[in-house]
Amino acid sequence: MSRAYLCTFRTAMSIPDAQIHPVATGRAAETVTQHQEPQAVTYYAGWFCPFANRSWIALEEKGIPYQYKEINPYTKDKHFLEINPKGLVPAIEYKGRALYESLVLCEFLEDAYPNHTPHLLPTDPFERGYARLWIDFVCKSAVPSIQRLVQAQEPDKQRAALEDTLKALRTFTENIKGPWFLGEQFSLVDIVLAPWIIRDYIMENHRGYSREAVGASWKEYAERLEKRESVLKTQSDEEHYVQIYQRYLRDEAQSELAKAIRAGRPIP
Amino acid sequence: MSRAYLCTFRTAMSIPDAQIHPVATGRAAETVTQHQEPQAVTYYAGWFCPFANRSWIALEEKGIPYQYKEINPYTKDKHFLEINPKGLVPAIEYKGRALYESLVLCEFLEDAYPNHTPHLLPTDPFERGYARLWIDFVCKSAVPSIQRLVQAQEPDKQRAALEDTLKALRTFTENIKGPWFLGEQFSLVDIVLAPWIIRDYIMENHRGYSREAVGASWKEYAERLEKRESVLKTQSDEEHYVQIYQRYLRDEAQSELAKAIRAGRPIP
Repeated sequence: MSRAYLCTFRTAMSIPDAQIHPVATGRAAETVTQHQEPQAVTYYAGWFCPFANRSWIALEEKGIPYQYKEINPYTKDKHFLEINPKGLVPAIEYKGRALYESLVLCEFLEDAYPNHTPHLLPTDPFERGYARLWIDFVCKSAVPSIQRLVQAQEPDKQRAALEDTLKALRTFTENIKGPWFLGEQFSLVDIVLAPWIIRDYIMENHRGYSREAVGASWKEYAERLEKRESVLKTQSDEEHYVQIYQRYLRDEAQSELAKAIRAGRPIP
Repeated sequence: MSRAYLCTFRTAMSIPDAQIHPVATGRAAETVTQHQEPQAVTYYAGWFCPFANRSWIALEEKGIPYQYKEINPYTKDKHFLEINPKGLVPAIEYKGRALYESLVLCEFLEDAYPNHTPHLLPTDPFERGYARLWIDFVCKSAVPSIQRLVQAQEPDKQRAALEDTLKALRTFTENIKGPWFLGEQFSLVDIVLAPWIIRDYIMENHRGYSREAVGASWKEYAERLEKRESVLKTQSDEEHYVQIYQRYLRDEAQSELAKAIRAGRPIP
């Protein structure tokens, strides 16, 4: 099955083609250390994966007990492959079965832990739908534009991707109610975009993007978001992300995500 | 904003480039006639649109009161454009505001009408996540493969797309619990794929597909699904779909969907 939503790798890959730091570092390392006890939720993630970042932020926001297990090309977790043969991350093990897909995981956490606040989606059905519309916009417009921009090699493709990215982020910004997208409520809309916001220095240093170019409100929103405690607690030291994104910048990354962007196929 | 989720057209298009029959026919016409009274939900749809078909089936399954309003290149609904400036269909108007995106609408109907059975998603959080995983599979693998197959022009591309389509549908079939995907419960997993199942004679007549080629279980499932009352009640006469899909077969369709497939961009 040619699913293109796997963040970066399948655990079946035996030889990693880059020197990826094997574990989380910085604040994320502390968070990992604090989540080593077995819990109802086992969270399988790659420390560097932006999709895993989403559901990790959600877990931290809601204070849901979880055991963190690092899955990357250096670790082969036999049990993980038994319950999740496709080996996809991020994934959650719950009562012996696995779910994956970052958005599915985020919705699952809302459904399974209704007493763990904050709620990351509105309770009003229409407002919930409105939030999902914008989650969909992030996933179908903003993130693909950013990924195309990072992976684009030719100047004309870089220009087009930068234009798409600025346009998508401006549209998003026009609809921010403030301080968070939905207003007072920090929500999944903020969370699904956050991992790319905190990595936007890559586009800034290499692809001509800047927060100012999107607009002053965007810059303000991005700076507020990157200071959110759940975002800081799941972030590793910047120097270790370099080896990963350098391969995307050269369009040499072999993740399902990178291949999907190249082939014009759906991404997570 | 270059969103590629609009089913077939934007109401701003003034000159349709094909002779599209302007209204629903057959069983769908009867259903439209029965839903002309103002209700809390106004449902804006194109009778021929497979994405609109999804949420229309959901409305019919749950017996939710709605007013049906046809939106296509021949009709310009001023009020619709006021509440939904992008003019996207399918859309729901509820208390004066609009939501769109077929999956968002389906989830909204579940949230907003909790007493209208059947429920189209499991209530158990894990099972609900499992259903959403497979909805995601349909949207990211099955439907794009089918669309690529219909629009492919060169023999090698048709062969590749047919292979992808058979593979995706076989994977889906392997996981059907029966009689419906989740087992006894007819759900959104069945609904999101249904519009393409009932149109699969297009692939059969023009692209070398057959239900038998997928497998006997698939054929049985497809035949069961196309007899479901909510599916029959939202279907127009076959002859009127011809003018629409002929353009897709020649890859001349100008819908956002068709353009997204050509460009390798995300589709609804």
